[in-house]
Amino acid sequence: MRVLSGIQPTGRFHWGNYFGAIAQYISMQGDPNNAFYFVADLHALTTVRDAQRLRKNVLDAALDLLGLGLDPAKATLFVQSEIPQVPQLTWLLMTVCPMGLLERCHAYKEKKARGLTADVGLFGYPVLMAADILIYDSDVVPVGEDQMQHIEVARDLAGSFNHLFGETFRLPKGSILDGSAKVPGLDGEKMSKSYGNTVECFEDLKAQRKKIMRIATDSRPMDQPKDPQTDNLFHLYANFANAEDLAEMDALYRRGGFGYGEVKKKLADAAEAFFAPARERRADYEAHLDTVRDILREGAKRASDKAEEVLQRAQLACGIR
Amino acid sequence: MRVLSGIQPTGRFHWGNYFGAIAQYISMQGDPNNAFYFVADLHALTTVRDAQRLRKNVLDAALDLLGLGLDPAKATLFVQSEIPQVPQLTWLLMTVCPMGLLERCHAYKEKKARGLTADVGLFGYPVLMAADILIYDSDVVPVGEDQMQHIEVARDLAGSFNHLFGETFRLPKGSILDGSAKVPGLDGEKMSKSYGNTVECFEDLKAQRKKIMRIATDSRPMDQPKDPQTDNLFHLYANFANAEDLAEMDALYRRGGFGYGEVKKKLADAAEAFFAPARERRADYEAHLDTVRDILREGAKRASDKAEEVLQRAQLACGIR
Repeated sequence: MRVLSGIQPTGRFHWGNYFGAIAQYISMQGDPNNAFYFVADLHALTTVRDAQRLRKNVLDAALDLLGLGLDPAKATLFVQSEIPQVPQLTWLLMTVCPMGLLERCHAYKEKKARGLTADVGLFGYPVLMAADILIYDSDVVPVGEDQMQHIEVARDLAGSFNHLFGETFRLPKGSILDGSAKVPGLDGEKMSKSYGNTVECFEDLKAQRKKIMRIATDSRPMDQPKDPQTDNLFHLYANFANAEDLAEMDALYRRGGFGYGEVKKKLADAAEAFFAPARERRADYEAHLDTVRDILREGAKRASDKAEEVLQRAQLACGIR
Repeated sequence: MRVLSGIQPTGRFHWGNYFGAIAQYISMQGDPNNAFYFVADLHALTTVRDAQRLRKNVLDAALDLLGLGLDPAKATLFVQSEIPQVPQLTWLLMTVCPMGLLERCHAYKEKKARGLTADVGLFGYPVLMAADILIYDSDVVPVGEDQMQHIEVARDLAGSFNHLFGETFRLPKGSILDGSAKVPGLDGEKMSKSYGNTVECFEDLKAQRKKIMRIATDSRPMDQPKDPQTDNLFHLYANFANAEDLAEMDALYRRGGFGYGEVKKKLADAAEAFFAPARERRADYEAHLDTVRDILREGAKRASDKAEEVLQRAQLACGIR
């Protein structure tokens, strides 16, 4: 069973990315032939229009993922644009894709509804994503709920192609990521780059501490007992603390008589300790960029070998081979 | 100066194709590095949904072109789908292509106006064509008038990409094919596959003669003098006859006293003689398919070497390399 996951290199990963997705992707690794992870630079092109920044983002994404525990011995890590078979398959799928299928897709529909002009890249994005998925005979694609529609597109296109040209593609299944982790941002809203309220996983430690000290809190008096389940600081702390420390913090909230500054300090300590091994790993990879390039090259080789096999199947089926 | 031309393998070439386009393409050959001709199988996928037929069409198109005089020593002949850089560039161009640019393109617009559902392949066709053109640093693309809009799309996309990411693509020029050759079909309408009124260049000779005998003529009496410029048979004959024979036929029309059957016979003889060397060449290639495959392989190698150079330029410019 092959798991596939694409990660957009649109900036540095933050706590929300990590607990909401990346930690879950990484937990699925095991056999490098069955765990494919790619940095989706072709997708990023629909929004990033700065070559230097995109190149930096791609390297950072790879370093971040390796730092956060993606293990090249247990997973195949590669950069999307190094697999020429993906855009080749994209065209084949475009020829069996009715306009209506893409016109119904959220990202395009919403942009259009706001009266904005969309690029064909945004419109065709789900076909590229379908090619990404189908080209590796992927079985499972873990995604956020908002991406399930794109898995459906991939299944539809695979089904249409199979129907027209005979059994060619394996039909992938989406699996929805566990969305139960609560990761509020600095302002209490959901942590998200678009709200500008994020703490990055590899934030400079001093800056991180300063950010944490700025997290919005309420003005209830110190001595008043508080329900921890209604407090952002507590939710954040819950992601990092072990069971014992968390129970202690829970009791502190219910007892009252503490200041938020104290909790923030504990949160900063816990986050720092939590990501310390990742930080060390990342620094090590960053000091050995040749190793990273080798990992990506070997990953691309393994991925494109598989991709070539599936592409040839599709080309034979429709008659261009 | 590099000339590029793509030919759709949607069936066997007929007299209209030959005099309206193919003869003109072939006359532009000279240096194989500067004359690129490809069989556009990726484009054909938008209409041909039968793998066997498409494979046959592609081989037939190559054989027909070689038979008709495309000389591998003077031109590079290849099959579109063997150049993986083309769909790779297509995606890059899609990300800089506003939806409006494609929504205005004739083929899509007309299909939509007729209330038909279009596929994304038809919609995105002009972007694939732009990639076909730009990837070889093509200077001149000879096309029919109906295709000039697509050359404009290629120029627009090249211009946008250059503007966003710095000078990358050479801006191609369209050159309109000479449309002065008159090639009426069996029914007197313009010869076109969609009217079912064609005579193929390599039609079986007996069938060809029969078809010619069926060409619609008027019922003016034999002895009446006729203006040759208003007669379909004469127009067809003009494509095949040398100046002397044509002058003789012209005089015969103006004099009157001849039967159309006589003209048809002369037309059949002239067409047969005209295509005799081509027919021989084609038969020779058909008897040596390995040679044809070598020609296509070498063509694809030369084309993709050039394509790789331009693709890398584009990838570097936008940051995915």
